[in-house]
Amino acid sequence: MGLTLALDAMGGDHGPHVVVPAALSVLAEQPDLTLILVGDQDVLARELLAHRVQTSDRLQIQHASQCVEMHEPPSQALRGKKDSSMRVAIDLVKAGRAQACVSAGNTGALMATARYVLKTLPGIDRPAIISALPTMTGHTHMLDLGANVDSTAEHLFQFAVMGSVLTSAVDNIERPRVGLLNIGEEEIKGNETVKEAARMLAASDIHYVGFVEGDDIYKGSVDVVVCDGFIGNVALKTSEGVAKMISHYMKQEFKRSIFTRSVALVAMPVLKAFRAKIDPRQYNGASLVGLQGIVIKSHGSADAFSFANAIKEAVIEVKKDVPQRIRKQLESFLTERRAS
Amino acid sequence: MGLTLALDAMGGDHGPHVVVPAALSVLAEQPDLTLILVGDQDVLARELLAHRVQTSDRLQIQHASQCVEMHEPPSQALRGKKDSSMRVAIDLVKAGRAQACVSAGNTGALMATARYVLKTLPGIDRPAIISALPTMTGHTHMLDLGANVDSTAEHLFQFAVMGSVLTSAVDNIERPRVGLLNIGEEEIKGNETVKEAARMLAASDIHYVGFVEGDDIYKGSVDVVVCDGFIGNVALKTSEGVAKMISHYMKQEFKRSIFTRSVALVAMPVLKAFRAKIDPRQYNGASLVGLQGIVIKSHGSADAFSFANAIKEAVIEVKKDVPQRIRKQLESFLTERRAS
Repeated sequence: MGLTLALDAMGGDHGPHVVVPAALSVLAEQPDLTLILVGDQDVLARELLAHRVQTSDRLQIQHASQCVEMHEPPSQALRGKKDSSMRVAIDLVKAGRAQACVSAGNTGALMATARYVLKTLPGIDRPAIISALPTMTGHTHMLDLGANVDSTAEHLFQFAVMGSVLTSAVDNIERPRVGLLNIGEEEIKGNETVKEAARMLAASDIHYVGFVEGDDIYKGSVDVVVCDGFIGNVALKTSEGVAKMISHYMKQEFKRSIFTRSVALVAMPVLKAFRAKIDPRQYNGASLVGLQGIVIKSHGSADAFSFANAIKEAVIEVKKDVPQRIRKQLESFLTERRAS
Repeated sequence: MGLTLALDAMGGDHGPHVVVPAALSVLAEQPDLTLILVGDQDVLARELLAHRVQTSDRLQIQHASQCVEMHEPPSQALRGKKDSSMRVAIDLVKAGRAQACVSAGNTGALMATARYVLKTLPGIDRPAIISALPTMTGHTHMLDLGANVDSTAEHLFQFAVMGSVLTSAVDNIERPRVGLLNIGEEEIKGNETVKEAARMLAASDIHYVGFVEGDDIYKGSVDVVVCDGFIGNVALKTSEGVAKMISHYMKQEFKRSIFTRSVALVAMPVLKAFRAKIDPRQYNGASLVGLQGIVIKSHGSADAFSFANAIKEAVIEVKKDVPQRIRKQLESFLTERRAS
């Protein structure tokens, strides 16, 4: 049985210039897949022409007359742009014409629209943003990466459930190890919210392994890292900043003299292989979890390789039926709580 | 006029094995400096003997019979270890026998003891931990790095004052650019605390340049990054984690084959020069600001080179009289507020 995804073809910094080639590359790999490009009919038709392809059963265009800007306030996008490529793509999921949607657009608008159209799962107060991050041993999933600030202990608990279920499904791990992000000082160890969430997790069926600190994220000692969205967003962006600084200084050193330039030439294959290991493009495709539907957020500046990875993430989550699994897990927790 | 520092010689993972050689190297460089090694008289005498030196006017021993363990609860250290090397070193500052103290011991215990013995400056509710971090353009100061969780807007404002004054003094910048750490999504931009702190900073004399995100820390776009201690600690440790992971993968790639091993040999000087640029040991020496006295915290695992940098940080802060400057700046802010 085939599988259909809706792509917000106008979102992100590059719109159809990235979405169309990404779509074509994934279609070539996955014969059961159908993709619906959502956006301006004429623009999309021209982009397809540039790639010498036509629409087909497996590559369709759904017209949408508007486009959400990258810095547009979410409430404005939600109220004023009911025919945006983002909104129409999500509507296709709601209508059952697509099993998931992928967008590189404005995160706030995507979250607000997805939440309004698809609604949250029963038992979930707030959807969260989750993504895989590279570690020394493979990768780990982290949430929330910025959808929620001032999360309560109950919210952190819900994030842990969602993160555990998604990771279990996507990575085929029966009981993912879940860690709660905290700070290390003894007396001042964390705030009350984190301590309360730890108690809730310890009493649950989740494979909770305890507190982790910032440097543990990249050690690979847990499969899921749970934190408030303010903290997760800072941790993620700080990581990007460190990686960029390191790369900046490394390039600078290799450019210093004729000797170092020739060393760079020799070292190139090694440096390339190294960079591939921590290539953030491999990890593109954050999920908006906790919704009654699958919505994948690509990085706004994603290139075609990177956006293709976001499409593949959507395919995996559809095949594993992640929202349904989260719903079931939550129901079993709620039953447990009522029983106890 | 000479300057005297008290060193907690028993603190940290390596105690006198690191503190003594660090002290000797700084004494050799700075002829006006006197150092008091605080700790077990016999242990310290043996360590000096191993380095073929004796006590002198410039290198004294102050006996302390106890030692605070690295994971001992701060309250227990404060109540039960009144003759610890850490406590005695801080007491020497209180008594005016030393102008600053340096410790690689338990951060929580150091903060609790320093606060109890030295007291906070008038107008400061909570001392904070501040440290320099490398950036693409030099370095930036960041606080709070873990002393305070659940900071209010008023606390963040006080951190900004302390960070601004310390950075101005230490880096000779007249009006350091101060940024408030936040997250980027439009609608959900930060929490109420951060927004309120931004209003307070914008209305003050501080050179407040606005919100910064996690990746801005390492761009060097501001001189001071202000945030709550939970967030600062996560950002700092996450950065360490990313740097370690990158170094791990780089080593792994260079070790892969005979070819890559020989590339590593050729690339060695370049990689060394690169590493020196972001060597965290250069940035060792976090300050506990907001106290009526100067207390420098070295990383627990610091080596002698690294601990020597923490001693030098103490020397600079003494010469610049950082606590007195913070006191004056706060007084002028308080006068302004009363006037307005």
